[in-house]
Amino acid sequence: MITVAEAEKIILEHVKAYGTESIPFTGALGRVLAEDMLADRDLPPYNRATMDGIAIAYASFEKGLRSFRVKATQAAGDTPVDIEQEDECIEIMTGAALLLTTDTVVRYEDIAINNGRATLTTDSISRGQNIHPKGKDKKRSGVVASAHQYITPALISMAASVGCHHLSVKRLPRVMIISSGDELVEVDQTPSPWQLRRSNSYTLQAILQQAGIIADTGHIPDDPAITRQQVGDCLQRYDVIILSGGVSMGKFDYIPQALEALSVRPLFYKVQQRPGKPFWFGAQEGGCLVFALPGNPVSGFMCIHRYFLPWLRASLGVTPGAPQYAVLGEDYQFTPDLHYFLQVRLHSNPQGQLVGEPVTGNGSGDFANLVDTDAFMELPAERNNFKKGEVYRIWRF
Amino acid sequence: MITVAEAEKIILEHVKAYGTESIPFTGALGRVLAEDMLADRDLPPYNRATMDGIAIAYASFEKGLRSFRVKATQAAGDTPVDIEQEDECIEIMTGAALLLTTDTVVRYEDIAINNGRATLTTDSISRGQNIHPKGKDKKRSGVVASAHQYITPALISMAASVGCHHLSVKRLPRVMIISSGDELVEVDQTPSPWQLRRSNSYTLQAILQQAGIIADTGHIPDDPAITRQQVGDCLQRYDVIILSGGVSMGKFDYIPQALEALSVRPLFYKVQQRPGKPFWFGAQEGGCLVFALPGNPVSGFMCIHRYFLPWLRASLGVTPGAPQYAVLGEDYQFTPDLHYFLQVRLHSNPQGQLVGEPVTGNGSGDFANLVDTDAFMELPAERNNFKKGEVYRIWRF
Repeated sequence: MITVAEAEKIILEHVKAYGTESIPFTGALGRVLAEDMLADRDLPPYNRATMDGIAIAYASFEKGLRSFRVKATQAAGDTPVDIEQEDECIEIMTGAALLLTTDTVVRYEDIAINNGRATLTTDSISRGQNIHPKGKDKKRSGVVASAHQYITPALISMAASVGCHHLSVKRLPRVMIISSGDELVEVDQTPSPWQLRRSNSYTLQAILQQAGIIADTGHIPDDPAITRQQVGDCLQRYDVIILSGGVSMGKFDYIPQALEALSVRPLFYKVQQRPGKPFWFGAQEGGCLVFALPGNPVSGFMCIHRYFLPWLRASLGVTPGAPQYAVLGEDYQFTPDLHYFLQVRLHSNPQGQLVGEPVTGNGSGDFANLVDTDAFMELPAERNNFKKGEVYRIWRF
Repeated sequence: MITVAEAEKIILEHVKAYGTESIPFTGALGRVLAEDMLADRDLPPYNRATMDGIAIAYASFEKGLRSFRVKATQAAGDTPVDIEQEDECIEIMTGAALLLTTDTVVRYEDIAINNGRATLTTDSISRGQNIHPKGKDKKRSGVVASAHQYITPALISMAASVGCHHLSVKRLPRVMIISSGDELVEVDQTPSPWQLRRSNSYTLQAILQQAGIIADTGHIPDDPAITRQQVGDCLQRYDVIILSGGVSMGKFDYIPQALEALSVRPLFYKVQQRPGKPFWFGAQEGGCLVFALPGNPVSGFMCIHRYFLPWLRASLGVTPGAPQYAVLGEDYQFTPDLHYFLQVRLHSNPQGQLVGEPVTGNGSGDFANLVDTDAFMELPAERNNFKKGEVYRIWRF
């Protein structure tokens, strides 16, 4: 049995890049950018009016001029108009471009326009006001978004602005989720009194969907030969296999043996944690990784969040985010010599602290609580008593 | 001009339910559950072994028996086997069901099996150990997930377990996003020096996609007749129209006039905030709501998060989450008499506090920073100086 830290280290040693692909930017939300995104021109591309009003030369205002002839009206997108006389102005709309002869915008609220002349109604004008200067946000060829980050709506906005209608993104690993267990029936079937419905593969599929991966799913019976044949087939076709069930000590659990017979090298089996102790992890020569999770729903749920998703982020080259912490909301005791992943409900208190309130269930078999909780709080194996107000790492789900 | 609180109140007075629909549970991630989900039987449905080992009658152990004949082996899904003699046991696998004659499971680690007899190697046994009792998590017909919550992977898991292969979910409003502005060209076109690429509608579409809504998009030229005709058409076909641009004071902004001509009753125009001051909101007699956002990218981005998404959650009947707060990471000054939405980068400190570090840009026109930030921190209009360590509400994006 290895520690949580050792298991994490071994898994992260098997991070792998799966290449890149070019896709339309409108379909790129949630993917990972593979190349720096550059500005195709200055941002903003011109001195840009940020208010509706008139554009004047500040030097004229300094000389004492307060009334200006409206030479032209200019909207966003119009070719900008220069003034030729110091008492001229351009009536200008938000977003319009200024050329060199005007350098200051006075908003409608501070002028009166009559008979083609705009008269200032304030003396409080400063040079360059209400102008967003050319290149102030980014210079041409400057990096507007660095590679190796998740594509958010803000990044989509930037891509559209700089004309990146296709984006180079990291390819996602091909993932197969395989559940096992003869006691499981399909969701639309009525189980006998001693059977359960198949749920883990749908749960894992939904978690992967949140991470942008459309995983395939399958189910294998508790039969060594069929297990070997079907898992062997998947090892050729997928980058990652996530197995659910079949890794505990029982006589009917063929999975570890089948995997080893298929030359999947075991890298660890059993982690000093609850839930999720019988977690098995291995790698095939061809590169396929196998996360073999316990069949207990909460165990699999925890292992995916604690081990698979960090591995995925690292494989996609995303800089790991800073760990997240929360304050334990009440005293908690856990005596076994295991790392404990406590289910908590999170809320933020008026001190700006994130508080995790334990929602204690009926041991690791109780997944009914998952619906009402937000995160696992990671309580270290070295201690048994955890006090209200102490801070521990959390894993949101 | 109204306050942020007044704008929020008016918008939330226009919350509307859009009905329900039944969809397969595998496609329901991110939707809102419309009905309570009930357990179709006890959870777990039987006394369930949580370890591999032997099932015994605790009374026999109490009498001093330490060795038991293995009467049968039983895996998960098997019809359970009763013992008939007090010195009998069932070799049992995790997940298997116990009948009434056995009530305690001793794990493999605490027994030795030879010649069909299992002998205990420990004296530390307690009644009912390693059993997850029938109905402990939920009783039959008990609510396993309440209506009006987002469907998470945990809820998908629960749906599968209780056989809810179709879920009744809230219908989403039909949303049309319309950008305006003759200065805008398509993303794959090269703008003239005075033009920009159309980006806001893609940004808003991506934000709505995160909220589960596939919105349509369109673009209208700066022409009063076309605006009236096209917006009028959309008023018939959508529940919500989000307009981007065309609501400032300029001569070329036809939107508010066009909307009023189409009997869209203005509910407010201009909010005491930066960015996003020229935000216009109205309702048509037929029920269509119009969020007319300023064309400035950061303004629209903020208004969607601060006003539209809370309206959407309320319309879907989701109990509002507790507000989120963070600690201001450094002193900040903002003098105008406006609510200020400061862009911050969030991290959690070792005290479990969420800290928002200001990332100051170049005014509300600068959306380059959005890529590098995580939330808006809402700084109230009543104050000008905001101190490091103070706690303010945040809006994550």
